[in-house]
Amino acid sequence: MKSSFRLGETGSRDAYKLLSGLVVPRPIGWIGTRRANGSFNLAPFSFFNVVSTNPPTVIFSGGRHSDRPKDSVTLAEMAGEFTVNIVSEAVAEAMNVTAGSFTAEDDEFEIAGLTPVIGSVVDAPMVDESPANLECRVVEILDLGSLPTTRVVVGEVEVIHVRDDVLDGTRVDSDALAAIGRMAGNTYIHTRDRFELNRPG
Amino acid sequence: MKSSFRLGETGSRDAYKLLSGLVVPRPIGWIGTRRANGSFNLAPFSFFNVVSTNPPTVIFSGGRHSDRPKDSVTLAEMAGEFTVNIVSEAVAEAMNVTAGSFTAEDDEFEIAGLTPVIGSVVDAPMVDESPANLECRVVEILDLGSLPTTRVVVGEVEVIHVRDDVLDGTRVDSDALAAIGRMAGNTYIHTRDRFELNRPG
Repeated sequence: MKSSFRLGETGSRDAYKLLSGLVVPRPIGWIGTRRANGSFNLAPFSFFNVVSTNPPTVIFSGGRHSDRPKDSVTLAEMAGEFTVNIVSEAVAEAMNVTAGSFTAEDDEFEIAGLTPVIGSVVDAPMVDESPANLECRVVEILDLGSLPTTRVVVGEVEVIHVRDDVLDGTRVDSDALAAIGRMAGNTYIHTRDRFELNRPG
Repeated sequence: MKSSFRLGETGSRDAYKLLSGLVVPRPIGWIGTRRANGSFNLAPFSFFNVVSTNPPTVIFSGGRHSDRPKDSVTLAEMAGEFTVNIVSEAVAEAMNVTAGSFTAEDDEFEIAGLTPVIGSVVDAPMVDESPANLECRVVEILDLGSLPTTRVVVGEVEVIHVRDDVLDGTRVDSDALAAIGRMAGNTYIHTRDRFELNRPG
């Protein structure tokens, strides 16, 4: 037996709990941006994914009523660029530190003990300790809701940096990458428990 | 040491291998649509995620040059509606069957041995065997690339159905859900190997 929820009736809190619990596991985009004063911003988003590889495109989105930082959306829009940093097991705790609430005077890199490296084509900070980094240019921002309540940043990936031990040619070694994913609430998963399904002919 | 790839130079095949290997784990949206002749279409997408919970919104996208089926994009656009079905371990093999290439005469539900149930507010088929189903209305289609090469379907979630054993109120039990996620190539992951990170204050 299944229970049914009409989202117009249940409100956005239930929508959050249901959707964030059911649509799993989510990849984590650790978004690096630069403020107008030059300082660095870094925050994790799990409403994030690749949406295209031709043109190579990622999206991340932040809600107005969410308790997640949404400065990243505003800063990406203002600067027109951002970085995506892959979250491995080794930087999971540091990622979690940057999920806190900070002011425009704070530097999340310094607070979390991370090393910023400015991109080769975008003027935004990458996390040196991440196993891979994407340099992205904003191509569009999609507003949802009337306020808007959510803003979806669409970015084209111009450059990818990958730690050498993670790569065999252009094939990614998932064990060396050791990415983590997001589940509901404060729960995350490792990506070690893998299995194969052979594609039908 | 890291290696750098400028995507304009490396081409879309490398972009696919790098991005699909690095941006992991991805949730799987098993998209149900209905053809003009009334028959059912069902195909999995991992360029898929929640992007907002207010308004409750999901996206999925299909590429023109991808070997993934893209009928779902066209059918969702034509009908203005689709369903998202959550892929659990129990339906992983059936999901994989529906990743094959089919013609407009094929019914992927029948081929994969699945039970279609028409939505309560959208005229599109849901997978009865999935632990949860989302009924969605298309609100926008975002075209990327000049052909366009990729089309991103943006859908508002109107109704959520969840199997009763998966829910405690509106809290989702991840063990009962037993969702699987997508890694690179033909590789998937379970969502059992979880850990907690307490949110900073």
